Amino acid sequence: MKQALHPAALEQLFTHARTFNAWQDRPVPDALLHTLYDLLKWGPTALNSGPLRLVFVRTAEGKARLQPLLSEGNRAKTLAAPVNVIVAQDLAFHEQLPKLFPHVDARSWFADNPALAESTAFRNSSLQGGYLILAARALGLDAGPMSGFDAAAVDKEFFAGTSIRSNFLVNLGYGDTEAGVHPRNPRLAFEDACQLL
Amino acid sequence: MKQALHPAALEQLFTHARTFNAWQDRPVPDALLHTLYDLLKWGPTALNSGPLRLVFVRTAEGKARLQPLLSEGNRAKTLAAPVNVIVAQDLAFHEQLPKLFPHVDARSWFADNPALAESTAFRNSSLQGGYLILAARALGLDAGPMSGFDAAAVDKEFFAGTSIRSNFLVNLGYGDTEAGVHPRNPRLAFEDACQLL
Repeated sequence: MKQALHPAALEQLFTHARTFNAWQDRPVPDALLHTLYDLLKWGPTALNSGPLRLVFVRTAEGKARLQPLLSEGNRAKTLAAPVNVIVAQDLAFHEQLPKLFPHVDARSWFADNPALAESTAFRNSSLQGGYLILAARALGLDAGPMSGFDAAAVDKEFFAGTSIRSNFLVNLGYGDTEAGVHPRNPRLAFEDACQLL
Repeated sequence: MKQALHPAALEQLFTHARTFNAWQDRPVPDALLHTLYDLLKWGPTALNSGPLRLVFVRTAEGKARLQPLLSEGNRAKTLAAPVNVIVAQDLAFHEQLPKLFPHVDARSWFADNPALAESTAFRNSSLQGGYLILAARALGLDAGPMSGFDAAAVDKEFFAGTSIRSNFLVNLGYGDTEAGVHPRNPRLAFEDACQLL
């Protein structure tokens, strides 16, 4: 029977994890990005559609393309992070459904319904973004999402001529605990966010 | 220095976790739902906005309200699960920002921009849905998301007169491994879903 993970694991994933603005000078090897994907890809999505697409930006050339598209307040910490992940979604994800969900013709449910395709891609790529952040933390990385960037410009720069659209960004690396983090903001109490019926 | 979690923890969270259609006759205590929220609430969201709202449906009365609003294919497994979670989003989440993100007047960015409020609520409540699923697995529960329900009808039944809207559903419980699960569908290869720049 499955048990709860060790308290130290729950701390690493949730209660002690923080969003960092400064980073150790410690690289994130490409092999670890493969391991990261090979964990997060197993998280459940609607009809196994998996609309998430990821761009791992880790070279100076890649960062030079991303930098001008970031909001001012996010620029320094993003450039300093070893890896910036563009968390994106394929609005034509349904073209993969014959492979990913082969026992039903689910492709046809979306092919003529762009609004349904768009909301499904947005919901499920965001859900997979949650898997990405927690898979990174499970691998000992620090990860924090950001929405402060020019999404249309990122789409033009990185996804021109494709059905892929940016959703949000995640910085990956090893947080510099000595540089400190902001004081933690409060969260809503159970009673304010949840109902028991 | 943080390390990767033990391989058994990565299996429990990602590689061995499955979506169940049959459940053990083992209750999920309310105290565990509180513990679940007290983990997932720490996951990062834009401006600490935390737009997620949850309804834990676990009584016969609650399930009787939900049942007719489920798609036929999801009805039996959902009724059999000890807890059905309505994962919802508060479109007026920004009213909480003076408390949750007190150092900036972020409320005003959304108060006059319903489209921005809506996309922020949808993205971040979905992201938090990912935290919910993995927090449940971290606590030894099985969890699987579903979109097969009448969202407008759920909103009318459970959220009438409020700014809360349903996003998706998650069944929680202890999966019945003897009843079996569907064969696992494939996932996209790294090269098909990811770019390294």
